[in-house]
Amino acid sequence: MDIERIKDSLRKFSEDRNWDQFHSPKNLSMALAGEAGELLDVFQWLKEDESTIEQILPKSLEQAKEEIADIFLYLIRLADKLNIDLEQVAIDKIAKNEVKYPVELAKGNALKYNRRDA
Amino acid sequence: MDIERIKDSLRKFSEDRNWDQFHSPKNLSMALAGEAGELLDVFQWLKEDESTIEQILPKSLEQAKEEIADIFLYLIRLADKLNIDLEQVAIDKIAKNEVKYPVELAKGNALKYNRRDA
Amino acid sequence: MDIERIKDSLRKFSEDRNWDQFHSPKNLSMALAGEAGELLDVFQWLKEDESTIEQILPKSLEQAKEEIADIFLYLIRLADKLNIDLEQVAIDKIAKNEVKYPVELAKGNALKYNRRDA
Amino acid sequence: MDIERIKDSLRKFSEDRNWDQFHSPKNLSMALAGEAGELLDVFQWLKEDESTIEQILPKSLEQAKEEIADIFLYLIRLADKLNIDLEQVAIDKIAKNEVKYPVELAKGNALKYNRRDA
Repeated sequence: MDIERIKDSLRKFSEDRNWDQFHSPKNLSMALAGEAGELLDVFQWLKEDESTIEQILPKSLEQAKEEIADIFLYLIRLADKLNIDLEQVAIDKIAKNEVKYPVELAKGNALKYNRRDA
Repeated sequence: MDIERIKDSLRKFSEDRNWDQFHSPKNLSMALAGEAGELLDVFQWLKEDESTIEQILPKSLEQAKEEIADIFLYLIRLADKLNIDLEQVAIDKIAKNEVKYPVELAKGNALKYNRRDA
Repeated sequence: MDIERIKDSLRKFSEDRNWDQFHSPKNLSMALAGEAGELLDVFQWLKEDESTIEQILPKSLEQAKEEIADIFLYLIRLADKLNIDLEQVAIDKIAKNEVKYPVELAKGNALKYNRRDA
Repeated sequence: MDIERIKDSLRKFSEDRNWDQFHSPKNLSMALAGEAGELLDVFQWLKEDESTIEQILPKSLEQAKEEIADIFLYLIRLADKLNIDLEQVAIDKIAKNEVKYPVELAKGNALKYNRRDA
């Protein structure tokens, strides 16, 4: 993925419209969370099975694509504003999660995962 | 960015732990929105200026990185489950936005952007 | 419900701590959405059945109560800051929804509701 | 506030439309968080001052009212489904917060609050 190209497109898009003034990390976090809310709207009344690629309706999939794109664009923009390397933090996080959720414990304990909030 | 590699790591991570059963698009949308909520928590009491790379405190930046990584991982996982090409939908969305917000209208109308919800 | 009493408690709580300076409607909307994100965290990996009062685990119910309380407090605080009468807007909204979703159409069309996002 | 009346209206509204089948606590938490996302949309590009009752535009205030009403209705519905007494959990939470954030510490420490995430 050429994420630098997308980042540059978003920079240019903002500069061309004089919108940089609105793009503080605080505001971008709100915009991103707002789009995540719209993503929930796609799935909220569906059964889990109805949300899968096998069963999802074409119009719902289309809507999901739009929201996923919006979230991704705001995420790239926010990371750019905070000098965060998305690829690096993703790889680092997976490594942390490997330690946090060891296979031995997790495998025998799908239920545990299910109930970890409890 | 080698997004295929991250996608594959996440697949393996889930399979190793028998967690695929929990990763319906519906559930993943909830997990993603939950992480977006945690991102808000980093910025909610900060002034806009205090959220910028120039002024943000190191610990807040660290927390923002963690949440941004979590959001990105759930986004990649969700896109994988729905066969969505993240790069492609991002590029398509920017093209749509170019049409939706023409420079001529937007440039003279920063305020309009500000008030578009109104 | 004596909502005026809760509203007054929240005002006093904020004044005593000199926290009014942080409670702009913008910031309160972020705090509220952040708590809504934590509510998602309680339910994200549960089956729908597992989230019901009949099956929910005591610890999950306890966590849900905490998040619901937080959301309610921020909602009361935000409504106070914007001079919004929560009871009135709730009653008005139900009346609007009665018109928007007529029984005749909705009853025969549970599926339609399910798919309205599509 | 006659919250019992609103609760009963919502029950009847759902029964009349055969929508109870969609109203699991899991799904209601998604709907609530989705509305919280729409609330963010009202305020995301506004300065904090522009979000206050003194400066907010009439149309933004109207939109905020709609979202606040939606959040409140889903909150009442969710509390009903989980047998949670909204007034009681709100009062209990304020009492907990009094202990968690003692005036002496908080008062001299507005900054601390501001930076508690850090």
